Amino acid sequence: MALSARNHLKGEITEVVLGTVTALITVKVGDNIVESVITKHSAEEMKLKKGDKVTAVIKATEVMVQKD
Amino acid sequence: MALSARNHLKGEITEVVLGTVTALITVKVGDNIVESVITKHSAEEMKLKKGDKVTAVIKATEVMVQKD
Amino acid sequence: MALSARNHLKGEITEVVLGTVTALITVKVGDNIVESVITKHSAEEMKLKKGDKVTAVIKATEVMVQKD
Amino acid sequence: MALSARNHLKGEITEVVLGTVTALITVKVGDNIVESVITKHSAEEMKLKKGDKVTAVIKATEVMVQKD
Amino acid sequence: MALSARNHLKGEITEVVLGTVTALITVKVGDNIVESVITKHSAEEMKLKKGDKVTAVIKATEVMVQKD
Amino acid sequence: MALSARNHLKGEITEVVLGTVTALITVKVGDNIVESVITKHSAEEMKLKKGDKVTAVIKATEVMVQKD
Repeated sequence: MALSARNHLKGEITEVVLGTVTALITVKVGDNIVESVITKHSAEEMKLKKGDKVTAVIKATEVMVQKD
Repeated sequence: MALSARNHLKGEITEVVLGTVTALITVKVGDNIVESVITKHSAEEMKLKKGDKVTAVIKATEVMVQKD
Repeated sequence: MALSARNHLKGEITEVVLGTVTALITVKVGDNIVESVITKHSAEEMKLKKGDKVTAVIKATEVMVQKD
Repeated sequence: MALSARNHLKGEITEVVLGTVTALITVKVGDNIVESVITKHSAEEMKLKKGDKVTAVIKATEVMVQKD
Repeated sequence: MALSARNHLKGEITEVVLGTVTALITVKVGDNIVESVITKHSAEEMKLKKGDKVTAVIKATEVMVQKD
Repeated sequence: MALSARNHLKGEITEVVLGTVTALITVKVGDNIVESVITKHSAEEMKLKKGDKVTAVIKATEVMVQKD
């Protein structure tokens, strides 16, 4: 199965915070921390929890570039 | 200066492709490749080119989570 | 494999237009037409073409609601 | 009045969940379910409720394509 | 007709650039310039051209905040 | 420091609402009101509060165009 989203960053969940509608999932990817806001429904259905091996997936049109 | 976007991934540009309206910027971040579609205007104004040290910036609401 | 994106609409590709950086993929979903702009790289790697059975995938935070 | 967003999916609201900042609106579109996260302000101002006829609106750059 | 997108900025188009898949629409909003990337299809169907009075529409989840 | 996002609208915060995961930041930009949904983490780390001078930052691919 292939998804057109270009960016797939493998990591491990370090924290899950559930709100009423949304959830914050924090993922350690190499030396970086990636934060994701998804629906609480998804977090619950996928049973996301600390320690889970997951992939952060990001569409290329959503990525900006910053130059110092 | 602080930006609310939660995700800042430092890396180096490996390729710049310019279209008419948009540009594809490929950034090596650790062991990962991150692809970004921005406007050609931005790519030109920032003079983005292979070898530039840049940061890929991503809003947390744009990040999905995949569990295998 | 599970992805947090809440919306998965099954359909069939009716048109593929390739630009320099991006590609327009048109998908017939039931009685609706769904248009997607992805990178040309993805369209080529996935060998997307007219007649392919695909799923349009959309993160819930990207969906607006209109009331007439 | 015309909006550049390419995707307009007509349906009926099946559930509204209000959080503090955001709201989850679930819409039945043909045989599909479409979930939308909008601000609670919008949900309240538009008085969105179960049974409302609405249109899910999605910008083409936000749609991904998956091939099985 | 009401749309859940929270941000509606009225202005006037100052430039339209058409690519193969996408189009860049530049809109003067008060003292600000707002740039939009939409599909070429939309730009053509809406016959967008310099001088048109338009509204830039932005979903609240797409807006970041920067503090100097 | 330069960021590829094309749209930078300067203004002043008129309201901050904190949820569990997200926060709603309302910014007065000239005669317009711009609403932003960011993570509560960002709102707290940046100590965003009423009266702060801030810039609303928006990627061009997230802006739609409406013609009346």
